[in-house]
Order: sequence, then C-alpha cells, then structure tokens
Amino acid sequence: MPIIEMHLMTGRTVEQKRRVVAAVAEATATALGVDKNTVRILITEHGLDEFAVAGVTKGQQLEEAAAAKASAQNPA
Amino acid sequence: MPIIEMHLMTGRTVEQKRRVVAAVAEATATALGVDKNTVRILITEHGLDEFAVAGVTKGQQLEEAAAAKASAQNPA
Amino acid sequence: MPIIEMHLMTGRTVEQKRRVVAAVAEATATALGVDKNTVRILITEHGLDEFAVAGVTKGQQLEEAAAAKASAQNPA
Amino acid sequence: MPIIEMHLMTGRTVEQKRRVVAAVAEATATALGVDKNTVRILITEHGLDEFAVAGVTKGQQLEEAAAAKASAQNPA
Amino acid sequence: MPIIEMHLMTGRTVEQKRRVVAAVAEATATALGVDKNTVRILITEHGLDEFAVAGVTKGQQLEEAAAAKASAQNPA
Amino acid sequence: MPIIEMHLMTGRTVEQKRRVVAAVAEATATALGVDKNTVRILITEHGLDEFAVAGVTKGQQLEEAAAAKASAQNPA
Repeated sequence: MPIIEMHLMTGRTVEQKRRVVAAVAEATATALGVDKNTVRILITEHGLDEFAVAGVTKGQQLEEAAAAKASAQNPA
Repeated sequence: MPIIEMHLMTGRTVEQKRRVVAAVAEATATALGVDKNTVRILITEHGLDEFAVAGVTKGQQLEEAAAAKASAQNPA
Repeated sequence: MPIIEMHLMTGRTVEQKRRVVAAVAEATATALGVDKNTVRILITEHGLDEFAVAGVTKGQQLEEAAAAKASAQNPA
Repeated sequence: MPIIEMHLMTGRTVEQKRRVVAAVAEATATALGVDKNTVRILITEHGLDEFAVAGVTKGQQLEEAAAAKASAQNPA
Repeated sequence: MPIIEMHLMTGRTVEQKRRVVAAVAEATATALGVDKNTVRILITEHGLDEFAVAGVTKGQQLEEAAAAKASAQNPA
Repeated sequence: MPIIEMHLMTGRTVEQKRRVVAAVAEATATALGVDKNTVRILITEHGLDEFAVAGVTKGQQLEEAAAAKASAQNPA
C-alpha cells in the first residue's frame, strides 16, 4: 500500500514534481518488492514562512542572511 | 476524539466540501458511537501534479491520455 | 483519490474499525460522487497520553477526574 | 527529532507564523530536553471550508451565525 | 527540506525499512537537486485493520479471500 | 483550531509527554492569541528504524557509531 506524503517548499516546477514522484515510486517499489501500482504519493507545498528549523522560518532565515550580507558590504 | 484528514484533488466546490464533511462526521460518529461534536475534519487539497499513482501524477496521466486520444484521431 | 487519515484513541475493536471505514468510504464516495474503489483510509491510533486538548492529555484528564471523584467521596 | 505539523486556519500574518514557530520550538526543546536545532515545524493552512467541527465547516458556521443575527435584527 | 511520511503495512523487517529510506532519500535528493542531508523520512506502520480500500480493511479482505478459497475447496 | 501533530522518537515518559503538550499548547495559544481550549495535539511515536536523516535510520546510525567506537578501542 505504500502511501507517501512529501512536504516540499513551494516553487518546484511541474517537471520536478513529476520527476521526484517517478523516482520515489520506483525506489519504494524496488526496495520493498511491491507492485509500483500500489504506491500513492501526495505532495504538500509549504511557503517560506510555513517551514521552520530551530524556531526560525525559512523566510526569516533568508531575510536575516540578506540583511547580514548587506551589512557586511555597507559597514556603517 | 476522531480527527480526520481528508486529502482531495483541488476543484471541489464549497457545497461539495460541506456535504462530504457532514456525511463523514455523521458516519464516523454513528459507527464508533461517539458524540458528533468530538469529530474534527481537516481537508487538504492537492493539485493535479501533487498526487501520483505508480509514479505518474494525475496531471501527467491526463496529458498522456489526451495525447493518445489525439494521436488515435489523427494518425500520421 | 480521496485519501483519508483517521486518528483514533486506541482501544477500538477490529469490528469497530471495519465498521467505521466502511461507513466513511461510503459517505465519502456518495457525497463527492466518486467511485468507492478510489477511497483509501489509514487509521492511526493514539494512546491516552498521545492526545491532548488544551494542553492536557486524555490520560491526565482521566486521572484528575478520578482523583476529584475520590476526593469528593472521601473528604478529609 | 521532533517534527511538528501545525494545522491553522488561513489568514495568519507572517509575523504571527514566525512568532508561533519560535514559541513552539522553544517549548518543545525545553520540555523534552532536546537541542532546538533538531525541531522542525511545518505549517499547513486550511480555508474556512476546509475545517469542520461536528460536520459543519467554519465557513458554514460563520454564514449561519450571520444569518441568525440578521434574522434576529430583522424579524419578518 | 523534503520531509517525507511513509505509511506502510506492519511487518517490514528492519532491513527493509533501512533499504527503503536509503532508496527514497537518494531518489528525492537526485530528482530535486537537493543535499541528501536535508531529507528526513518518517515511517508509520499500520496494522491489517488500519488500512482500507473501498471501505474494506486489508484484514477483512484477507479473511474473505481465505473463506472464499475454503468454500471453493469444500463445496457443501 | 490549531491542530498539532508531533512526531517523536519512542521512549518518552508519560511525564515528558504531558509536559511537552502543556508547553506547546500554551505557546501556541499565546503566540496566536487563541483560546487554549481550541488547541488539540496528537503525538505519534516512531521507533529507531522509523526515522531517517539522509537516508540513514536512527537505529542504523547508532549501530554504526557503536561499531566505530568499538573499532577505535580495539584496533586489529
């Protein structure tokens, strides 16, 4: 039955999504020795502020990195 | 407590969503003998390229079916 | 495609699980107008201390209710 | 490893999302005694008709409350 | 970030689980062009009566198949 | 409505689970300005070979670390 939920950052192209589900279904069927037709995959996309590591969203992390870079280039 | 997550293809109308959660909550409460007020349902919608069977997304499957049909109607 | 995840407290009998998935699949197929064969349901069971409302697990709530009852019956 | 999925109604600001993941990551790391860097949080947002209590979506509930209020203010 | 939840029937060996997560992480990283270290996979196992297709659990389906076979071998 | 799913490694005590859901519910309610009674939390526990980073399960990682340590202490 494998049912697989993939959580990805938004922004992947249709082509990338098709490629990743093909590869993951193949890998799952081969590794478990099951018929590929039984593998179902759901993708859920998350925006930059809907994923966080250590309590900091990706959006926040990118902003802080950009601010740090700008500050390094333009010291007061 | 039943908490239910429903994964659906995008495109359902508001009316359909209201109908399905009403039916599922009723079915769950009756079958388990619990108060319907304890049943919570979350719907998550997935686009055509965010659901795949056998490693092929729904979007890809529809494209291939359309191409096969066009090819059958217009053989070279 | 409906894929449905049901979170239940542990302790349901096999009979109850079979009844609830039959009822929910029927309800979903009818309400959405889809073939029942496309409906897949996953049940995940949670122990008494793996479900919480308002920050209090079910296990804790039962313990506190039992303690309150005992206290009411046996006032110091 | 704590991996946390938060289901929220749509409509939270970026600021609120950043605040809630910071607070939840901190609370989780402290309560479990784990390194905050191991905590990952995914937010999934649900529209008004993608969340239901007792078989009634939030959207439907708001509509019915508004209708009841209008009816009370303008009795036939 | 890919975070992947795999729902499997119970009964896989440790060896199978290690093989499938290795294959899926590799497939995901390659297909999306991301660092394999960012891929996290969670496996959740479901018993025979915690997975249903068309409203019939896997346990029920196996029982019915066994009964049909016995009946065919021992006609009244 | 916040509904929160926490994925943890197995092995937490009842006390730890009660502490973490109390802390997370409090943090969520405060950060979002919602009534704590609306916060529901589900814990799902995963065994050592049901969680993987970079395609290596936690169980495998611990075994390899133990083997490396033993090898360092007892060079051939």
